[in-house]
Amino acid sequence: MLYKLLKKYDAEFFLQYASSRDANFYYSTSFKIPDPVLYAIGVDGTDLLVVPEMEKDRAEKESKVKEIASLSDLGYYENLKNLKDARKALAFTYVSLLKSHKAKKILIPPNFPSFLAFYLKNYFEVEVVENPFSKLRMIKRKDEIEKIKDVSAAIIESFKYFLKCLRKFRNCEEIRNEVELFLFKMGYLAEDTIVASGLESANPHSIGFGKVEDHVIFDVFPKSRSHGYFSDFTRTVILNENKKIEEMLNAVIEAQETAISKVKDGVKAKEIHNLVCDVLESRGYHTIRKGFKEGFIHSTGHGIGLEVHEEPRIFENEDVLRAGMVITIEPGLYYKKVGGVRVEDTVVVKKNGCEILTPYEKKIKL
Amino acid sequence: MLYKLLKKYDAEFFLQYASSRDANFYYSTSFKIPDPVLYAIGVDGTDLLVVPEMEKDRAEKESKVKEIASLSDLGYYENLKNLKDARKALAFTYVSLLKSHKAKKILIPPNFPSFLAFYLKNYFEVEVVENPFSKLRMIKRKDEIEKIKDVSAAIIESFKYFLKCLRKFRNCEEIRNEVELFLFKMGYLAEDTIVASGLESANPHSIGFGKVEDHVIFDVFPKSRSHGYFSDFTRTVILNENKKIEEMLNAVIEAQETAISKVKDGVKAKEIHNLVCDVLESRGYHTIRKGFKEGFIHSTGHGIGLEVHEEPRIFENEDVLRAGMVITIEPGLYYKKVGGVRVEDTVVVKKNGCEILTPYEKKIKL
Repeated sequence: MLYKLLKKYDAEFFLQYASSRDANFYYSTSFKIPDPVLYAIGVDGTDLLVVPEMEKDRAEKESKVKEIASLSDLGYYENLKNLKDARKALAFTYVSLLKSHKAKKILIPPNFPSFLAFYLKNYFEVEVVENPFSKLRMIKRKDEIEKIKDVSAAIIESFKYFLKCLRKFRNCEEIRNEVELFLFKMGYLAEDTIVASGLESANPHSIGFGKVEDHVIFDVFPKSRSHGYFSDFTRTVILNENKKIEEMLNAVIEAQETAISKVKDGVKAKEIHNLVCDVLESRGYHTIRKGFKEGFIHSTGHGIGLEVHEEPRIFENEDVLRAGMVITIEPGLYYKKVGGVRVEDTVVVKKNGCEILTPYEKKIKL
Repeated sequence: MLYKLLKKYDAEFFLQYASSRDANFYYSTSFKIPDPVLYAIGVDGTDLLVVPEMEKDRAEKESKVKEIASLSDLGYYENLKNLKDARKALAFTYVSLLKSHKAKKILIPPNFPSFLAFYLKNYFEVEVVENPFSKLRMIKRKDEIEKIKDVSAAIIESFKYFLKCLRKFRNCEEIRNEVELFLFKMGYLAEDTIVASGLESANPHSIGFGKVEDHVIFDVFPKSRSHGYFSDFTRTVILNENKKIEEMLNAVIEAQETAISKVKDGVKAKEIHNLVCDVLESRGYHTIRKGFKEGFIHSTGHGIGLEVHEEPRIFENEDVLRAGMVITIEPGLYYKKVGGVRVEDTVVVKKNGCEILTPYEKKIKL
């Protein structure tokens, strides 16, 4: 696939410069490293990771890259002595390497750091292309789907525990702490879990503070601490009678179920997004599609895997759903004077439909 | 400070495009956001954060940036309809904004994403400069030092708990899990905590696996889950007589204490690093300074704060230690056929010395 891309652009190299916090880097190298390093794929068969000396052995054992070089193998420390600037010495070391492979044109991904891109531009033609691994990552392998299922099962357990906590604690921070600790003990890291109640829930990204009021949004997106995959799930729980909130929740559940019923291979992301808007508008609510700033004001969902938010986006765009994609469907409604509601599941796209990985009833009253 | 920088380069804007995972972005905005957004500082007084519509209210409440605009305020959705490409529409939206402020020259930090830098280059002069917030972040304010002290105190508790675990469990994975859970309960997130024993400890970044053998390196660098600051600490514990390891540990303790005794305002980072090399070489060990690939093969330390590894680097460079910097001093020795040892403390640089934030005895035999 990389070979085809390089040929298409008549380029000799595709470069990534990233740490394993970058999902594309981790996906393509299987190497965990906290600081950024260079990964070079060449049309001449080069498949090379350049790491600090002390990481070389580990890279040889743990990464799936064919060839490992250390910075000192490539003369970095001599360059550092001459140039007296770590970044320049690094860039110069990479330039020498690429020249020795007769590179003329280099492809880089969108998030490639500018300091290095600008330096390379002095020696080569440099072009930004979509990271081909972002596209590859959209379609999950079987083992990846198993990992997302594993996190999804933990999410359902954590939601049951959340419901228990709602009976015991009456404070959003306390409940968030309890649920995140519950997940951590099971081997999952949840951060910024949303436990948002009352008017605070009208802010879709507020994690929530203070007393639990008439209703509460619970949105959790943990990562497995062993394999690194995410899943994502939201439910809105009604604690006290609130007619407006309940009507909003009914509309959102209808929109979400309608959307899920249409997810299958070949459907455009924007068809799903527009369907959600159709349902919510037909119930008299406002949507982002018509430029409103209250109502349904975000996208319908996103891909999920090694990142919480990854491609495709379920929104106004040209993305097409394909079997093997794992996406969220998460409509919501938000009104500053009323509050917010949201319902979200993570699903795997199949040839003729989809499989819900986070099954749990949607209308919950305590 | 920014104004001076812009004047120096005769530029109209300094731009950051990052999420709050980027410490410079978080430090300069105080805004937590999972996906990248634009933060623009202009010589004309502009201090503007551009966020998705649904984050606008939260940004106005939580960030310390003067002015917040949403993407829809700036016409992003019209641009998206015309250009049908999210990244192009975004870049075009920013170009229009910058043009309306009569920008001609733009400064960007080294890690600024290339897709946006290359697009801006079509309209403006663009130059990469060191991120001025990296330099600012090196000198910690009092409240930042208090936060690092808070994490450091938790580290010492976790080390005492680690010593208890060493008596109960005999497996590196189990001990790591126990200690990380202990810290999580206290409100700290430790990931990739090193519990490395036997020959595995010769790999400085191996997190360690399998049975606890004759000695064990414990290296923990948790982040507070409330305020986000890190601290860093390492001890090597001897469980069974091992003459070579004990000699190495004695040398490393001497090197570390000598280095710490010389840390104060005005001293060059490389003087500290060379002092460590001097001590270790005088004891007959190999060092990176002489090009060896076993022995002392990494830098002496690094700044720490909102990132585990940040400026300054305690290595061969021109960095000068200044009062208020928080750094680690962490010499180690690694021989493939013997194993590794390391001792590390986090210290605050003072006018006439330094304060150790992670005080604990260094020679530990169980």
